Amino acid sequence: MEMELDDQGHMVVRPLLTDLYQATMGLGYWRAGRACEEAEFELFFRHCPFGGSFALTAGLQDCIRFLRAFRLRDADYMCSLITPDVQFLASHLRALDCSRVSVRALPEGSLAFPGVPLLQVSGPLLLVQLLETPLLCLVSYASLVATNAARLRLIAGPDKRLLEMGLRRAQGPDGGFTASIYSYLGGFDSSSNTLAGQLRGVPVAGTLAHSFITSFLGSEVPPDPMLAPASSEGPAVDLPASVNLWLKRVCIYLGLEEREPHPGERAAFVAYALAFPRAFQGLLDSYSVRRSGLPNFLAVALALGELGYRAVGVRLDSGDLLQQAKEIRGIFRTVGAEFQMPWLEFVPIAVSNNIDEKELARLAQKGSEVNVIGIGTNVVTCPKQPSMGCVYKLVSVGGQPRIKLTEESQKRILPGSKAAFRFLDSEGSLLLDLLQLAEEPPPKAGQELRVWLQGAQEPCTVKPAQVEPLLRLYLQQGQPYEPLPSLEESRAFAQQSLSRLRPAHKQLQNPAVYQVALSEKLRALVDSLSARGAL
Amino acid sequence: MEMELDDQGHMVVRPLLTDLYQATMGLGYWRAGRACEEAEFELFFRHCPFGGSFALTAGLQDCIRFLRAFRLRDADYMCSLITPDVQFLASHLRALDCSRVSVRALPEGSLAFPGVPLLQVSGPLLLVQLLETPLLCLVSYASLVATNAARLRLIAGPDKRLLEMGLRRAQGPDGGFTASIYSYLGGFDSSSNTLAGQLRGVPVAGTLAHSFITSFLGSEVPPDPMLAPASSEGPAVDLPASVNLWLKRVCIYLGLEEREPHPGERAAFVAYALAFPRAFQGLLDSYSVRRSGLPNFLAVALALGELGYRAVGVRLDSGDLLQQAKEIRGIFRTVGAEFQMPWLEFVPIAVSNNIDEKELARLAQKGSEVNVIGIGTNVVTCPKQPSMGCVYKLVSVGGQPRIKLTEESQKRILPGSKAAFRFLDSEGSLLLDLLQLAEEPPPKAGQELRVWLQGAQEPCTVKPAQVEPLLRLYLQQGQPYEPLPSLEESRAFAQQSLSRLRPAHKQLQNPAVYQVALSEKLRALVDSLSARGAL
Repeated sequence: MEMELDDQGHMVVRPLLTDLYQATMGLGYWRAGRACEEAEFELFFRHCPFGGSFALTAGLQDCIRFLRAFRLRDADYMCSLITPDVQFLASHLRALDCSRVSVRALPEGSLAFPGVPLLQVSGPLLLVQLLETPLLCLVSYASLVATNAARLRLIAGPDKRLLEMGLRRAQGPDGGFTASIYSYLGGFDSSSNTLAGQLRGVPVAGTLAHSFITSFLGSEVPPDPMLAPASSEGPAVDLPASVNLWLKRVCIYLGLEEREPHPGERAAFVAYALAFPRAFQGLLDSYSVRRSGLPNFLAVALALGELGYRAVGVRLDSGDLLQQAKEIRGIFRTVGAEFQMPWLEFVPIAVSNNIDEKELARLAQKGSEVNVIGIGTNVVTCPKQPSMGCVYKLVSVGGQPRIKLTEESQKRILPGSKAAFRFLDSEGSLLLDLLQLAEEPPPKAGQELRVWLQGAQEPCTVKPAQVEPLLRLYLQQGQPYEPLPSLEESRAFAQQSLSRLRPAHKQLQNPAVYQVALSEKLRALVDSLSARGAL
Repeated sequence: MEMELDDQGHMVVRPLLTDLYQATMGLGYWRAGRACEEAEFELFFRHCPFGGSFALTAGLQDCIRFLRAFRLRDADYMCSLITPDVQFLASHLRALDCSRVSVRALPEGSLAFPGVPLLQVSGPLLLVQLLETPLLCLVSYASLVATNAARLRLIAGPDKRLLEMGLRRAQGPDGGFTASIYSYLGGFDSSSNTLAGQLRGVPVAGTLAHSFITSFLGSEVPPDPMLAPASSEGPAVDLPASVNLWLKRVCIYLGLEEREPHPGERAAFVAYALAFPRAFQGLLDSYSVRRSGLPNFLAVALALGELGYRAVGVRLDSGDLLQQAKEIRGIFRTVGAEFQMPWLEFVPIAVSNNIDEKELARLAQKGSEVNVIGIGTNVVTCPKQPSMGCVYKLVSVGGQPRIKLTEESQKRILPGSKAAFRFLDSEGSLLLDLLQLAEEPPPKAGQELRVWLQGAQEPCTVKPAQVEPLLRLYLQQGQPYEPLPSLEESRAFAQQSLSRLRPAHKQLQNPAVYQVALSEKLRALVDSLSARGAL
């Protein structure tokens, strides 16, 4: 309900999805004759999420779409909330669009650090004030979930396959949609969410749930039980009959009674195998993994194997996942050897069940037999810190810097229109980020520079081997400037960016703080505005 | 992007916002000839959120809208993900609608307890399976945030005004939209979110932010500084000039130098007062509350007071809010007395700044001078537990009960189509909830009944003074049955429901567990299915 269609048919956030005070301030600016003064806001965060030392940025495409489509069609309603004299303001608001708004931003998938602007938004004061809430809403959560996914990927290492499956646990439908897209950007391999596949090209994965298993009693008769061999050569086979024969052999080998494995579960596996002979996966824990799920899976997998099909996996959703994976791998190995189906040893084992950073570390440890890890709630809702805490602060009006002082020093902001640079050492690792005034000449690689580190009493010198400008112009006076990268490109960029971060900064608990330094001029401006109380 | 318009122009969730495995299972059911078997799923939770002993239900209207509009227009895409032979399944899926689906549910704003169905969804197996993810997504977060808001209201007591202002911190745009609606349902008074006002009638509130204050230097000249008296009788006054006169008097009285209060902040207050003379609020902490915000506010409030206008409030957004409110109330009292404006003593004090349950308890303590409390992140993102953990489980197929056993006993489900009743004592307080099989005759008030409490080894007897059936029929074969209440009605119902909960259950930390009992027949069914492994 908070969306509408833009002229290309994309859903965009409605401008009315904002805080009322943006409109009351709008009237204040307007009455003060200041609605059209040129202003600049910066969107940034003050602390890295999850106690880490980095964030990944995301959500830029949604912001640019929102800005390009921005029209206050419902200005009458907004005005009716704040002033009895609606018309004089409503007509001004209705005429607003973003044709005078420019946006610089960190590219999607960038590493970001405290105080460095993710977005710089400039344009008429009243308008860029109104944009605050929707822009924060679009950037904060997207960046939070991308960062969360990147952390999980760092823990899992490069080889485990990570599946996001948290849509049902998300904070509303587009919480889920956003999470599916940006957990992929942050390093996941796929999502369960079909809409994220259709609209944004995220690889989609999924097989079956317990309800499918428990819906079968075992007395069901498949309309067509016959399955042709994978090669299409040779006669079709009655799969349930073949499975029953294999079950006998498996039970004898495993020392189980043949009546122990649940016939409903087996019927469900057979039904699934008939529908997906080339993509058969067994969900093992509907009744009992050892006494039912595993023998039933093996019977179906071996029957399929006889026809030339290879099962693609098993999934566990309860119990000690690491231990069970180990045991199952062992059984796959010996059963595969016993029945001359050596590929069985390598059937991927997928696990899920409220996996968080700690459990993921356990599942990803050396020697783990787990191959695929499904994460829902803990990637999507970011329970360690469910909000990024981004802010959107006024830094200049009419070209003049603005500051907010306040008695809580950590709530201060850095004044003035700024540029940001990343310094790298000769090996291409990140050294620090530098904030300076936009008017200063850019720093040069190989040149020594005096900068102020956070909290330092004295400046220090730094000589970067490489210097990269961080902020790019994406919207110039309402028109697209630099094109936005694809999701795949941003995903690759994110991983490449992370690879340049030193191990000490990549640590997820108690990492070394990555420095964001100020130029001497910016520092001097902060000092003089603070001393003067911003006068 | 996850929404589309229904035929009444409402935004509804797209059916493709679901997990891929719903579709792969769909193909499995279809190939097994079971797509149209009559099935029933229950949506429920296993643990109350936030360590409490209750939840409030919400999201039903969104579910009913979703179901009524459900058409799989993008079935081709969905099928292309799972089978090379798209057409044969896609044509079946495209023809699906909810005309054979019925829904019983707890009314919006009900108290809910573990295991009691929030929704019972029955219809063709393949279809009701497909509905799982969107229904979970729509109910879980809405109920979570309503419960969170109810807890915060219990802490705040009935008199403090609670404002939800978390849109910018929400997990995506409709996370924010949903939170604004259902925190109101849960007991908040208003929201900052204008769209929630427009579309769902939530009262909207808001005044000004720091950016408005810091955008003024003090050198600005208002185009029209003249303000007529509130009564419209008598000449208009130059407000900034009058404020400057009042500032002198206030500074002398408070022992401040006249140059201490920030002229930009004062100019901002004057601009806001000119725009909203009847609704002037001062945000006090842009520079320094005591040396700047407060004297500037007083100067403007007194100048307005002279013209017959009364300031509506001040807001604090940093520092020790309780202590500052106390000091400010004291200053309001003495300044009001000094300048013969006694109403000044009662100007509401609003506070915000990352307020959580603990800080809210402090702010709501006896003697607190805080009147209005704005809560953002901590109501919207539910950091104590950002996901409700609802599940949607198959309980019967073709009228036959289904069970899932698994080795984790807490992941078991209660089989069969069920009815639910609430037992009350003679004072109207809640005794327990009873789950029984749908076919059993309903329990009667005043009659003794043998029931099984959770974990009990023996049944016990209970004699309710009143019995209320809990689940109502909202959708019958795709058609609306009982009408849905308005948001206001549900909000009142929620507060009324909470008032019947005993104090021991209302406790937010370590509450007494509210009992959900099973009838003897349901208990016997569980036992027999467990013993037989659901055969």
